[in-house]
Amino acid sequence: MELTTRIVLASRPTGRPAAEHFRLETVPLPTLGEHQVLVRNDWLSIDPYMRGRMMDIRTYAEPVGLGEVMVGDTAGEVIASRDPAFAVGDHVVGILGWQRHAAVDGARLRRVDAARLPLQAYLGVAGMPGVTAYVGMIDLCEPKPGETVVVTAASGAVGSTAGQLARLRGCRVVGVAGGAEKCRHVVDDLGFDACIDYKADDFKACIAQAVPDGIDAIFDNVGGEILATLLGRVNHFARIALCGAISELDNPQPHGLKRLLPFIVNRVRLQGFIVSDHAARWPAAIDELSGHVAAGRMRSRESIADGLAAAPAALIGLFEGRNLGKQLVRLG
Amino acid sequence: MELTTRIVLASRPTGRPAAEHFRLETVPLPTLGEHQVLVRNDWLSIDPYMRGRMMDIRTYAEPVGLGEVMVGDTAGEVIASRDPAFAVGDHVVGILGWQRHAAVDGARLRRVDAARLPLQAYLGVAGMPGVTAYVGMIDLCEPKPGETVVVTAASGAVGSTAGQLARLRGCRVVGVAGGAEKCRHVVDDLGFDACIDYKADDFKACIAQAVPDGIDAIFDNVGGEILATLLGRVNHFARIALCGAISELDNPQPHGLKRLLPFIVNRVRLQGFIVSDHAARWPAAIDELSGHVAAGRMRSRESIADGLAAAPAALIGLFEGRNLGKQLVRLG
Repeated sequence: MELTTRIVLASRPTGRPAAEHFRLETVPLPTLGEHQVLVRNDWLSIDPYMRGRMMDIRTYAEPVGLGEVMVGDTAGEVIASRDPAFAVGDHVVGILGWQRHAAVDGARLRRVDAARLPLQAYLGVAGMPGVTAYVGMIDLCEPKPGETVVVTAASGAVGSTAGQLARLRGCRVVGVAGGAEKCRHVVDDLGFDACIDYKADDFKACIAQAVPDGIDAIFDNVGGEILATLLGRVNHFARIALCGAISELDNPQPHGLKRLLPFIVNRVRLQGFIVSDHAARWPAAIDELSGHVAAGRMRSRESIADGLAAAPAALIGLFEGRNLGKQLVRLG
Repeated sequence: MELTTRIVLASRPTGRPAAEHFRLETVPLPTLGEHQVLVRNDWLSIDPYMRGRMMDIRTYAEPVGLGEVMVGDTAGEVIASRDPAFAVGDHVVGILGWQRHAAVDGARLRRVDAARLPLQAYLGVAGMPGVTAYVGMIDLCEPKPGETVVVTAASGAVGSTAGQLARLRGCRVVGVAGGAEKCRHVVDDLGFDACIDYKADDFKACIAQAVPDGIDAIFDNVGGEILATLLGRVNHFARIALCGAISELDNPQPHGLKRLLPFIVNRVRLQGFIVSDHAARWPAAIDELSGHVAAGRMRSRESIADGLAAAPAALIGLFEGRNLGKQLVRLG
């Protein structure tokens, strides 16, 4: 009997995920049901949302059940098919979970062109993180040429794409990231106009200096004191896209926002969003992003962990800020 | 020489306005310049925004200068005119300040129909507070039939209109107001489905009970713990129009919002706004509101103080919640 490997949720974290919450299992290769497709996953995407799905709390999606395969976006190749829409050798992405093989209905797969972009790009800049950046930046931040836009978690998969999209729209783009190495990457490799290290003592002064004309839009992944500091510099009619609030995780006393009056005085709009609500925007987003990457106008960095067994550590590292750019696991 | 009266800003408050910050003056009746119109103001509107203009702080408008006439919306009658667009006897509204007479360019006046609605209605439900309610409720809260909408400061000039507009759109409307008398007025006279007294010990339980299907939109004038409580009950894709944040005034330790994650999980939009940005909406708003009032579909309560000298106490009372409905000063 042919075997394959998978990682299931062994127990639920109360705070950050740790190794003990995962269990690597060896199981029989799944057999194909009618209309099903057997996929060999070559890449697993590691994303912040996974943490919420490990916990037994009401969020915008059902939690993963104990003993069930961890949820995750994957890219791979069709190795057997009973669905006429998919042929052996097709490259496909889906949300097939932390496992090397999966037998699924074809409706759960999307075929991608691995000749145009590397397969794993469809998990990053040309995938869910890219569309997240696109919806938040283009639709919610509405950047206009000459405006100043700030992006937090700027070296991450989403932030790096959001900032580059604003640059391509003619904005001055300032990133916020943790540490000198990430800030250098954001400016030197990604082309942001500036990047501020939020761990620096003079963080607030640096922000003030980096946005001499104020801030017109914020793409935020962190919340907390960083967002509050940025809010002190917003221009009238500023837009804030709230993509994440990582500073509030593991934090019994989050910073929050002390006052709402500045939202009125400056007519600020703040919009929380989740990319899965914006299915209609996927084609336009993927098309534009793929074009930018293929033409060399947009860059993306990857942090790659090797082998399914390395996935838990990769997710844990994400919440310690150890990744630079898109965190992936190469399953092959 | 004919004389008239006016009230000027005598000194700047640091907290709430008090009598000492105002000075009543008797001055010569102004003479008419070329193209000017002499107006006898019969009504002065008392509005929360006045407080900000008394202080020497950067808000969305210039502060009133020391010794200058206090800013304020007025309704009155043309008693002399060197502008062919205005005739003696015309009823007009403008922002002519706390004074019985003013000589101004015709461009600063808007003619109103005192036969359709009482003149002072153009300072309330069919004036700036009404348009504020209209823009915040219709354009920003976007109420849909069957939705649950909450309005804070529900018995005030703005809140009472905002709530009635949502009722007319087919929503379940819950008010929040201070004290049993105001709450009774909001339900019995204005037709809200329920009104919760925020001073009651069981305020949070009452809110929960009043919104069994959650909250789809909030028209907020207060901020603070009330808004935070409401946020705990919002449905996905809820809209919040931030019109005021009265709980933050005189408050060195405002409640604020502790967490932003709920904005993401529930995809909440929060939009601060100021009515003067929405000049293009005035005609539609005034037209709809006047129609509702004239047809008896919308009610408005007035608190009337008599004589210009009573204006300071009327403004002070506004911040003590002493008014019910629109606070006016009858100047005649």
